[in-house]
Amino acid sequence: MVNQVQRGDGTLSSRSDSSAASASGGDSSKESSRCSTPVLDADRTDRLRYKMRRRMESGDHWFSLEFFPPRTASGAVNLISRFDRMGSGGPLFIDITWHPSGDPGSDKETSSMMIASTAVNYCGLESVLHLTCCNQSKDNISRHLSKAKHLGLKNIMALRGDPVGSDWEEEEEGFNYAVDLVKHIRSEFDDYFDICVAGYPTGHPEAHSYKEDLIYLKEKVAAGADFVITQLFFRAETFLKGVYAYLDQQCVCVQGYQSLRQLVKLSKLEVPEEITRVIEPIKDNDAAIRNYGIHQALEMCRVLLDSGRVPGLHFYTLNREVATMEVLRQLGMWQEDPRRPMPWAVSAHPKRKVEDVRPIFWGSRPKSYIYRTQDWDEFPNGRWGNSSSPAFGELNDYYLFYLKSKSSKDALLVFEVFTCYIAAQPNRKGHKVMCLPWNDEPLAPETNMLKDELEKVNTRGVLTINSQPNINGKPSTDPIVGWGPPGGYVFQKAYLEFFTSSENVNALLKVLKKYEPRVNYHIVNVHGRNLTNAPDMQPNAVTWGIFPGREIVQPTVVDPVSFMFWKDEAFALWIEQWAKLYEDESPSRMIIKYIHDNYFLVNLVDNDFPLDSCLWQVIEDMFELLQTGLDTGDVLGALNTGDGGASGGR
Amino acid sequence: MVNQVQRGDGTLSSRSDSSAASASGGDSSKESSRCSTPVLDADRTDRLRYKMRRRMESGDHWFSLEFFPPRTASGAVNLISRFDRMGSGGPLFIDITWHPSGDPGSDKETSSMMIASTAVNYCGLESVLHLTCCNQSKDNISRHLSKAKHLGLKNIMALRGDPVGSDWEEEEEGFNYAVDLVKHIRSEFDDYFDICVAGYPTGHPEAHSYKEDLIYLKEKVAAGADFVITQLFFRAETFLKGVYAYLDQQCVCVQGYQSLRQLVKLSKLEVPEEITRVIEPIKDNDAAIRNYGIHQALEMCRVLLDSGRVPGLHFYTLNREVATMEVLRQLGMWQEDPRRPMPWAVSAHPKRKVEDVRPIFWGSRPKSYIYRTQDWDEFPNGRWGNSSSPAFGELNDYYLFYLKSKSSKDALLVFEVFTCYIAAQPNRKGHKVMCLPWNDEPLAPETNMLKDELEKVNTRGVLTINSQPNINGKPSTDPIVGWGPPGGYVFQKAYLEFFTSSENVNALLKVLKKYEPRVNYHIVNVHGRNLTNAPDMQPNAVTWGIFPGREIVQPTVVDPVSFMFWKDEAFALWIEQWAKLYEDESPSRMIIKYIHDNYFLVNLVDNDFPLDSCLWQVIEDMFELLQTGLDTGDVLGALNTGDGGASGGR
Repeated sequence: MVNQVQRGDGTLSSRSDSSAASASGGDSSKESSRCSTPVLDADRTDRLRYKMRRRMESGDHWFSLEFFPPRTASGAVNLISRFDRMGSGGPLFIDITWHPSGDPGSDKETSSMMIASTAVNYCGLESVLHLTCCNQSKDNISRHLSKAKHLGLKNIMALRGDPVGSDWEEEEEGFNYAVDLVKHIRSEFDDYFDICVAGYPTGHPEAHSYKEDLIYLKEKVAAGADFVITQLFFRAETFLKGVYAYLDQQCVCVQGYQSLRQLVKLSKLEVPEEITRVIEPIKDNDAAIRNYGIHQALEMCRVLLDSGRVPGLHFYTLNREVATMEVLRQLGMWQEDPRRPMPWAVSAHPKRKVEDVRPIFWGSRPKSYIYRTQDWDEFPNGRWGNSSSPAFGELNDYYLFYLKSKSSKDALLVFEVFTCYIAAQPNRKGHKVMCLPWNDEPLAPETNMLKDELEKVNTRGVLTINSQPNINGKPSTDPIVGWGPPGGYVFQKAYLEFFTSSENVNALLKVLKKYEPRVNYHIVNVHGRNLTNAPDMQPNAVTWGIFPGREIVQPTVVDPVSFMFWKDEAFALWIEQWAKLYEDESPSRMIIKYIHDNYFLVNLVDNDFPLDSCLWQVIEDMFELLQTGLDTGDVLGALNTGDGGASGGR
Repeated sequence: MVNQVQRGDGTLSSRSDSSAASASGGDSSKESSRCSTPVLDADRTDRLRYKMRRRMESGDHWFSLEFFPPRTASGAVNLISRFDRMGSGGPLFIDITWHPSGDPGSDKETSSMMIASTAVNYCGLESVLHLTCCNQSKDNISRHLSKAKHLGLKNIMALRGDPVGSDWEEEEEGFNYAVDLVKHIRSEFDDYFDICVAGYPTGHPEAHSYKEDLIYLKEKVAAGADFVITQLFFRAETFLKGVYAYLDQQCVCVQGYQSLRQLVKLSKLEVPEEITRVIEPIKDNDAAIRNYGIHQALEMCRVLLDSGRVPGLHFYTLNREVATMEVLRQLGMWQEDPRRPMPWAVSAHPKRKVEDVRPIFWGSRPKSYIYRTQDWDEFPNGRWGNSSSPAFGELNDYYLFYLKSKSSKDALLVFEVFTCYIAAQPNRKGHKVMCLPWNDEPLAPETNMLKDELEKVNTRGVLTINSQPNINGKPSTDPIVGWGPPGGYVFQKAYLEFFTSSENVNALLKVLKKYEPRVNYHIVNVHGRNLTNAPDMQPNAVTWGIFPGREIVQPTVVDPVSFMFWKDEAFALWIEQWAKLYEDESPSRMIIKYIHDNYFLVNLVDNDFPLDSCLWQVIEDMFELLQTGLDTGDVLGALNTGDGGASGGR
C-alpha cells in the first residue's frame, strides 16, 4: 500500500534532496564537507523517503505493519511488547492509526500520539502517525504536529478522516480534504515531516468516480506528499489493473470472523463473494478462518511480488501478530536478523541519532534508560566522558514500563529466585522465573556463556543482576555477541554486577587488592557508601567495535558517576517492585527489606580482555577468605569512616 | 638546584591546590564531578609544581636541563634536535635562559621566548622560561608574560638579572629585586604561572652576607614563588652544609677549558683550587678536561643523592649533550624509556592537553602538523570526526623546520633514494640516505618490521613515504609498537602511503575491487583528482589502545578530508625541498618535476587487522596485472571525467 511519489519522467521526487544530509533530524547541522559523526547505520538516521528509495533501488522488497491504539493501559503494555517482537522481523516502518474519538493527541498512555512516541523512542521503530483533519481547527492540528515533532515523530499520514456525527459539509477556511492538511503541514513545518497520503485502488467510497479520486490523489502529491498508502483490498487484480499498480499495497490476513466484520465496517469495502462463500460455513471456527486467511493473503502477496511492480507489502495487523508473522515467514520476508545495530536497544528519536555510548547498568532496562535521559539536549557519542554531567530524570511517572515487569508472587527464597532465573529452571513451587526486577528483557544469549558460573555464585549469595563475558575480537556478525555492520570485530571486557552482603564485601575488598590494576571495582550501598578504584572517576569502556573505514565505536561504558544514579534505581527496585508483592510484615517482605538496607551493589570489570576472565576467581577467593575463618578485619569500616573511602558520589 | 617550597610544618605548600584540576591550562574548565576528558597521562596536564610533588612523594629522583638561546638560525635548528634527543632521557623540565641583550622576547627564531615556545609546543617538553626584570618597565614585563602565556608557556624563572652598563641603582616603582617580579606576576596573572626563583648556596655575589641573602629568598617565596633554583656550585659540601640542603642543586659538567672560563664569568663564582689545580696542566686537552669534569660531576651527584636530602639534579648543559648524558647514564637516571605517551610526538601547549587524535599523514612530520594546527581553538579528542572542520594553516613561514630536512644533493635516481632510505644503506655514490623530505624523523622502529617488503616495492616504483604494520593487541609496554600507560593493549590497522605512476594507479584501481570492503583507499594527484572508497568521507581509526579503567583511545586516523591538505604539503615537498637542490633544467630536477606533475599519492588501509596484512598482496596483484600485458583499460580516465569520480575534496 505504500509507494514513493514518482515524477512523470520516472525519476524519484527530488524536492528537498539537497537538504537530505541536514534535514533528517529537523535540526539543521552545521554545513560541513562530511558527516559530523561516524554513524554506523544509515538506517538509523535517514528519513523514511530515503530508506524507501534505497530499498527500491536495490530491489529489496520491504514490509510494514499497521496498528491501532489500545483501549487500556495493560493493552498498551501488551502492544509495546508486540512492537518489540514484531520489530525484530525487520519492518521498514510501522504506522499508528488516529482515533478522533479517543483523545488521540493526549498524554494518555493509550493515545495514538503516545503509542507512536513509544514505538519511536523506546522500541526504535521508524513510525508513521496517522492524523485526520476533518472538523479540526488549524490551531489544533498545529498543536498535534508540534507535539509529534517534539516527541521525535518524523512521519505523518495525512487523512481527511470520517466526519463525526452528522453528514459532512465543506467548511470555508477549514480542512475539507486531506490535501488541505498536506498543504498545512508543508506551510507550517516546511520539510520536517515525511508525508504520506491515502489512495483508494477501488476509488474512495464517497468519490463520484475512480477517475475523480485519482485527481484528488494527484493534488495531494502536488501539495507535497512523499508517498501514498492505499486502502486495503482483497484481490490482487484490483490493484494490478489500475494506476495503483505502480504503488504498493496493503494486505490483510483475516484472523477471525469478527475481525473481518470489523474491518469491512471500517474500510467500507465489500468482501468479495468468493471469500464470504468460504468463510460463512466456518464462521464459528476461528482457527479455520485464520488458516484460510493466511492462505489467501499468501496467495495474493505472491501474485503482487511476482508482478515485479511491487516494492513492498503493508499489513494491517489488527494488533495481532501470529497470522502476519506466518505470512511474512512463508514469504521469506521475516528477517529475524540476530545482528544488532548496537549492543543495546536503540531509540529512533532524531535527537538520539548520534548516540552511541551508554552506561552498561541499564543494559537490561533500556526503556528506563531512554526515559530517564529523554530530556538531555545532547547525547554522548564517541566518548561518554565528554558528555555533559549526566542528569538522570526521576522514574516517578514511569508507570507504563514499571507495569511490564511482573515478578512471580510465589518466589520466597531470594537466592533461589536468582539461581532459578539464571538456570531458566522452575523454583521449588514449579514456577519458572522468567524475569527479575532488574531485567526487563529475557537473559541475553551471551549470558548463557556464563550460566554455570552465575548459577554457582548466586546459590552462595552473590546475587547477579548484570554480566557480560570478555570477548577478544569476534566478527561483528557473530550471532551471539556481534553487533554493528558486517566486516567488523567486536570486543568486550568481562563485567559482573551483583548485590551481596557487607560481610562478603569486606572479604572482597581484601581480595581485590591482589587484582590491582587488572580489576576495576565500584561498591556502593543504599546509604551512599561508595568505594571505587576508578581512576579520576573516569568511565571504563567495556564494549567496543572496530569497523572498516570507521572510527572506533565504544557503545558501552562502566561510568562511576552514572553508577550512583543506577544504584538508586537498582535499590529502589527491591522495594518498589519486589517487596510490594507481599503483605506488610510478611517474612518475604522483611527479607527483601533487609537486603535493601544492608547489602551492597558491586560492579567488577576485568581489564585484561584477551585473557580468561578472572572475575570468577575473584569471587572464589572471596569465599575462600571467608571460609578460612581467619579474621578478615573490618576493611569496610576502616575504609569508610566518612561518607566513603574513595572519591566519588554525585 | 630545584626544590619545591615547603612550609615550616614540613607539608608542601597548598596555595591554590583547590584549583589544581582546572588551573593547569589556564582556561578554567567547567565545574564537573569528574574530568571532562580521559587523559591518559597526568604528566601531560599537571602543572610543574604537582609533578615535583609526586616525584618527591614517591622518592623518585628527577633531573632537569638548562639551555641558553642560540645565536643563529642553524644553531636553533641544532638546539631543537638536541631538545628531541635529550628530551628522550626523561628530564622533569628544561629551562631557557633570558639574554636581555639578545632581544629575548622577540619573534626571532633564536630568541629565548621562541626557543622556549618551540621546546613546549614542538618538542613537548615541560619548560621554564627565565625572565629578568632589571631596567625593565612594567608594561614591557607584562607584554613578555602575556606573550609567554599565549605561546603556552606555564613556568617562569623570576630573576633580577644583571644591570646593563653602569652600576645598578634602585628605582622607585621599578623592578629592583626578583621579589618585585614575583609580586608582579602574581598580581597580573594570578596563579597561571608556576614561578621559580634563584637561590645562592654561597650567597649572592652582591649580597652583604649569606644571611641577608636568605632573607631575600624567604621574601621571594612569601611573594608567591613555587620553587627555588640554586646557582651552580662545585662542591657538594657547599650545598649540604647550609639551609640549601633542603633544596636541590645545579650541577655542571665541565666540558672544556673555555666553557669553564665562560661559566665562571657568568656565575661570578670562584672555581675551587683543587679543580683548577687539576685542570691547568691539561687545559689544551679538551677530551681530558671533559673526562675529568664527568668524573667530578659524577662524584658530586652521588654524594648529593646519597645524602637523602636531594630530590633531583639540575644540569647546566652549556647546550652540549655528551657529558651531561654520560653523567646521567652512569647515575642510572637517564631513562631512555621506549614507552611513548602517544604514538605521535605530543605538544605541551596547555590548549592541546586533551588532544588525543591526529591524522596519520603527518606521522613523520609532527612539527609541521603542530605548526599547521596551532591556531585551532579546540583539539579533537575521543573522535576526529567530531572536530570542527579542519582548517590547516599554510606552511609559508615554516622556515625553521623546513631547514631541518637536509636531503642529499647527490641523490639522482629517485627510486634508489627511496630504496636506500628504507634499507638504511648507502646509495651508489656511497652516501647513506638518512631522511626524505616527507620524514623529519628517522624511520620508526616498527617500520623495520616491514623493511623487506618496503624495499621490494620501492625498487619497482612504489615510492613509500609512510607505513605501519597491523598489530592485534600487543601490550602497551611493547618496546616497538607500545604507547600509553602500562597494563593496556595496543592495536593497529596496516597502513601504506606512497607515490606511484598513473599507470600503476590504473592497475591498482582494478585490483582494489577484489579487496572491497577490506581495503580502504584514497588516491589523489596534484591536480586534485580524488578517488576514495571511504564511506561518507569518514575517518578510519588505524591506531587505538585499550587501557584499564579508561575509555578507548584512538590516537591515529586516516581522515579523507585532512588527506587533501596533506596532499598539498606532500606534493609541494618534491618541488620545495627536493627539486630545489638541483640546478634549473638539470636532469634530476626534471625527473622530480615530472613525478610531481604526474604521479599519484595513494593511501591504503587494511581493515582486517587480526589477519596478515593484505597490502603487499594488493601491490603484488597490481604488478601482476601490469605484467600480464592485458589491456587493463583506462580505469582512471573512465572514473574521473569530472574533477574526480568519488565524492570528496575539501
